[in-house]
Amino acid sequence: MTVKVAVHGYGTIGKRVADAVTRQSDMKLVGVAKTRPSHEARSALAKGYKLFLAGAGQRDAFDRAGIPLAGTAAEMIREADVVIDCAPDKVGRENARLYQEAKVAAIFQGGEKADIAEVSFSALANFEAARGKRTVRVVSCNTTGIARAAAVLEPAFGVAHWEATIVRRGADPAESHKGPINGILPTFKLPSHHGPDVKSIFPSLPITTIAMVVPTTLMHVHVNHVKLTRAPASASEVLERFRKTPRFHLFREWEGVEGTPQVMEFARDRGGPGRSDMMENALWENGLRLDGPDLYFFQAIHQESIVVPENIDAIRATMNLAPDAATSIAQTDRSLGIPAPE
Amino acid sequence: MTVKVAVHGYGTIGKRVADAVTRQSDMKLVGVAKTRPSHEARSALAKGYKLFLAGAGQRDAFDRAGIPLAGTAAEMIREADVVIDCAPDKVGRENARLYQEAKVAAIFQGGEKADIAEVSFSALANFEAARGKRTVRVVSCNTTGIARAAAVLEPAFGVAHWEATIVRRGADPAESHKGPINGILPTFKLPSHHGPDVKSIFPSLPITTIAMVVPTTLMHVHVNHVKLTRAPASASEVLERFRKTPRFHLFREWEGVEGTPQVMEFARDRGGPGRSDMMENALWENGLRLDGPDLYFFQAIHQESIVVPENIDAIRATMNLAPDAATSIAQTDRSLGIPAPE
Amino acid sequence: MTVKVAVHGYGTIGKRVADAVTRQSDMKLVGVAKTRPSHEARSALAKGYKLFLAGAGQRDAFDRAGIPLAGTAAEMIREADVVIDCAPDKVGRENARLYQEAKVAAIFQGGEKADIAEVSFSALANFEAARGKRTVRVVSCNTTGIARAAAVLEPAFGVAHWEATIVRRGADPAESHKGPINGILPTFKLPSHHGPDVKSIFPSLPITTIAMVVPTTLMHVHVNHVKLTRAPASASEVLERFRKTPRFHLFREWEGVEGTPQVMEFARDRGGPGRSDMMENALWENGLRLDGPDLYFFQAIHQESIVVPENIDAIRATMNLAPDAATSIAQTDRSLGIPAPE
Amino acid sequence: MTVKVAVHGYGTIGKRVADAVTRQSDMKLVGVAKTRPSHEARSALAKGYKLFLAGAGQRDAFDRAGIPLAGTAAEMIREADVVIDCAPDKVGRENARLYQEAKVAAIFQGGEKADIAEVSFSALANFEAARGKRTVRVVSCNTTGIARAAAVLEPAFGVAHWEATIVRRGADPAESHKGPINGILPTFKLPSHHGPDVKSIFPSLPITTIAMVVPTTLMHVHVNHVKLTRAPASASEVLERFRKTPRFHLFREWEGVEGTPQVMEFARDRGGPGRSDMMENALWENGLRLDGPDLYFFQAIHQESIVVPENIDAIRATMNLAPDAATSIAQTDRSLGIPAPE
Repeated sequence: MTVKVAVHGYGTIGKRVADAVTRQSDMKLVGVAKTRPSHEARSALAKGYKLFLAGAGQRDAFDRAGIPLAGTAAEMIREADVVIDCAPDKVGRENARLYQEAKVAAIFQGGEKADIAEVSFSALANFEAARGKRTVRVVSCNTTGIARAAAVLEPAFGVAHWEATIVRRGADPAESHKGPINGILPTFKLPSHHGPDVKSIFPSLPITTIAMVVPTTLMHVHVNHVKLTRAPASASEVLERFRKTPRFHLFREWEGVEGTPQVMEFARDRGGPGRSDMMENALWENGLRLDGPDLYFFQAIHQESIVVPENIDAIRATMNLAPDAATSIAQTDRSLGIPAPE
Repeated sequence: MTVKVAVHGYGTIGKRVADAVTRQSDMKLVGVAKTRPSHEARSALAKGYKLFLAGAGQRDAFDRAGIPLAGTAAEMIREADVVIDCAPDKVGRENARLYQEAKVAAIFQGGEKADIAEVSFSALANFEAARGKRTVRVVSCNTTGIARAAAVLEPAFGVAHWEATIVRRGADPAESHKGPINGILPTFKLPSHHGPDVKSIFPSLPITTIAMVVPTTLMHVHVNHVKLTRAPASASEVLERFRKTPRFHLFREWEGVEGTPQVMEFARDRGGPGRSDMMENALWENGLRLDGPDLYFFQAIHQESIVVPENIDAIRATMNLAPDAATSIAQTDRSLGIPAPE
Repeated sequence: MTVKVAVHGYGTIGKRVADAVTRQSDMKLVGVAKTRPSHEARSALAKGYKLFLAGAGQRDAFDRAGIPLAGTAAEMIREADVVIDCAPDKVGRENARLYQEAKVAAIFQGGEKADIAEVSFSALANFEAARGKRTVRVVSCNTTGIARAAAVLEPAFGVAHWEATIVRRGADPAESHKGPINGILPTFKLPSHHGPDVKSIFPSLPITTIAMVVPTTLMHVHVNHVKLTRAPASASEVLERFRKTPRFHLFREWEGVEGTPQVMEFARDRGGPGRSDMMENALWENGLRLDGPDLYFFQAIHQESIVVPENIDAIRATMNLAPDAATSIAQTDRSLGIPAPE
Repeated sequence: MTVKVAVHGYGTIGKRVADAVTRQSDMKLVGVAKTRPSHEARSALAKGYKLFLAGAGQRDAFDRAGIPLAGTAAEMIREADVVIDCAPDKVGRENARLYQEAKVAAIFQGGEKADIAEVSFSALANFEAARGKRTVRVVSCNTTGIARAAAVLEPAFGVAHWEATIVRRGADPAESHKGPINGILPTFKLPSHHGPDVKSIFPSLPITTIAMVVPTTLMHVHVNHVKLTRAPASASEVLERFRKTPRFHLFREWEGVEGTPQVMEFARDRGGPGRSDMMENALWENGLRLDGPDLYFFQAIHQESIVVPENIDAIRATMNLAPDAATSIAQTDRSLGIPAPE
């Protein structure tokens, strides 16, 4: 069975999800919808994607640019079995009605509130909860990063308390109008919204998060302190758990990976399809410490790409394309060049 | 009585301490020692400071630049009652012998290890411990920031546990060769050295710190989670404590101080002597939250200047120039344009 | 005679001009008008300035913040002899009617087009042209920087052709929402508007400018290539001209001023009233080269403050407070801590 | 015929050249030499490259990291027909003797002075000059960018005078220790070395260059003003020349490519082998203006990758692998995913 997938919104996430869909043997890309012509529209055409006009867009602008349109987003949606909504934050809610009317399944992104969908989703944590659902929400990049780690730590060791400081990138690399250029901006919502968002997946996880924004475009970094209920024997035991789980990458001390610049350099070096993305949680062996039941660790999260494999798995869960999470994850990762656990 | 003060090393801290000394009625600046001519040497001369040749420096370079020298650092030291050592990290230890030989009191900076001096110092916390000592170490900017906050919280509410994430600026504004330009660098020493350094002043404070470096030059930001042993009645009670303590500045929500850029803008706007510095811990009323015994708060620390008033107080403690901490602090702050608590 | 000055708009320029006005013996600050309460409003009150409600502002917001208002901007304007309009770009044009109705002289900033006023102004270039005028426009920071340099080079050596590349800062230090964080943005208007803007003061200067934006907050940098009609004997002759002109600061090679970070560090070190501003054009002796009639030089321009002394001189020209440019400039510079030429 | 290529030095350029060599049907990668184990060594092994110990390296460090070595650089060189020297600046000169002794051809990078090789090279400009030579120097990224543009403009229109302002990135993305974080650093060598370097390829090109460094990691930007000897009929004629030449990419206004962030985003989006590199000169149709004989244009240069295809062509020239420049360039570009001219 081949599921027909439409991508509604063609920004940072949308364009990556579209590319990822084309790499799945059980999916077919119907097309992508966009509001404006741009270099991204030109690249989409070069890749052979059908381009549809998104709601707020103007056909004229595409005509003037010489970018052919295959129709409207509404038409695209009618051809699809499932729509991946990658519209800007809050616009997904407006779009939801379209999907309902067209009777297609819909997958939303974490910029929408949890109540937009029947279930909030992170593949390692709750793949089965999304099975057969008509609306699913893939949680945001930071929440995905924490949910993945929780999916490792909670079953293995239990979590008595989790505190995370989330140091966020100020803008994506191509968002050249956003700052700050020089300065640190605390997020005065205390605690930040990330903790409650994690609970949309792990309802009883005792987690508190605090956030700030810094002048970088590459990745977020999380500082985690997790008090475990069953203390591991050693840090190595914890590292081993992470190492054996898909979508984690562990750097060793001798590799000289001093921070997010080298993590992304690693991602560029290894090649593979796509945009030199880092779809795994990046951890450092020397950036994890166990002190009795207290676990401290850094992880870096590539805000642009980490949710891409999650969207693919969400499609499989929704559309009943895989027997279980592990099978879907392995298939997704293979297709996207994410190495299997060592 | 007027104490004769020499400043050995004329970088970020040294030049500020020298200026501050000239503003004290009970102190006299003997001169400053520098290794190289530079625009800072020119400014020092313009301010009428005597310039001495620091150890590693070359007289030739000063001659070629037309910068007159009043002698060597050794000669400067002999004229002083107390030397403020503002040499680069680790060089203070080499200099210590000079001070011993010259039988002058010496105040070191936090770039040196605690054992360089009889006592590590932060004025609000342990002024009396430095009274009459011959060697004192003013702790570093981040440690000073935490020690000040501990001096407020520990006596008032007790501290059961303190966790701080320290998000450090990558370089001072004029350090144009240091990075990172784009990226976040975790400090892989886990926990970071700041916790033990705070204990050089509060030996039994149960504190853990984790650090990272980000691409900004303005200030550090601390994310604090303090579990108090005696829960305050409300966040207001905690804010009131900070507000009534010297060297704390609290911003209100309506002031629109979104982060370190606006904190430093505030410091520029208020004018006063000097370099538009922010010598207080900067807190936000809307950046502090109390949840039972759990206190969360952000504070921003101006790495260039926060230790300057501490050095002045350290001189007073060492030289027996003030009857108590409060008197010294009030005198220092008045002279430096730091407003008294509201 | 003491001229009553009102400052309409209290942002980067307005707050500096207000402070500068209070330092003039021949001027009196009526007050400042602001749309919103903020830390800047609090600082203004602390300085004893009367605060008025600017047009788009809401009285409620000030009331809630506990910031007392002395009236509306219209009321402030009626008390003034001259208004300095420091409203955001384009808003000055809306305000112009208010000034006309109130029959006060008005000084606009360079964010407005040249036709807003009878004359565009730069003190070294055309002080007399503004004498007695009812509307004057102080040109923008970049244009001021070039106009000052032209006021030196044109009379002394003649200008056959001038090309400037203007490398602009992306945002002011406290504009934390503006980017870019990482990247260079060419200004696709070719040539840029700066050349024509310089011609609002030097109508026949053959100048072409090209601009771009880079991720810094400190200063703009200009790369100038000026073909002179009468070749100077040597680079020293040109340097001497700059050195003898007010509002130029020349750094020497041994001072180690590698770029804008050290220029601003110099400004912080020298102290003086205000915000550690650099109101002079900053040039480097080793950043100027003469090759026959071809003069190449870098200059750094502090976007926040360079027009401040120009506004003060514009008041004097408009209000007939000084016999000539040199007298006004010397008086302004003395009051603001800008050193007289060596 | 298959030429055996060794890559000596495995940094920014070396690792890209190694990957590029493996994509050539007429070349075979002998291996790469590196001084230290690192994540790049791990990636090299993952790609199946033989790793050799470069001169200053320590075998121990590799052993401890568990990274197997195939031998020393000297051994690698003996197996090769041609060595690509990608050692840090100036180290190439030390290595030159090794190549001479081993009687292998050697290709050096632009960090070395021109006299290190018989010919300085840029494929569009002087492919034939390198034919059969034993030592060739591929000019640096900025020089390559200008040389390519000169190879278009000089033959078509003649160049009476060329002025370029070179706005350089402060560090490569993974060089996290380099600054500046906030500030602009003029290059006080006036004119900069780039002009003379271009003349190592175009000896009589009348070019002057001025440079500065800004806080970005993505790309350099050149501002060019070229006075042509034979004025083109229109800007379109010039654009057409660029468009028809390999290794130029022209963006259209509607594409919304505001600067280097979007140029690199485009490179990421189009995919292809490798690191989301942009090996072409990036120009903007709306960033080029013709005014009589005066041509103004911006171009962005990706410092990490622009010389990679040049190195491949240099191998072909040296080893007599291609009948002419056009054939080599087309073959190189096809292999590296650089689109042929439209």
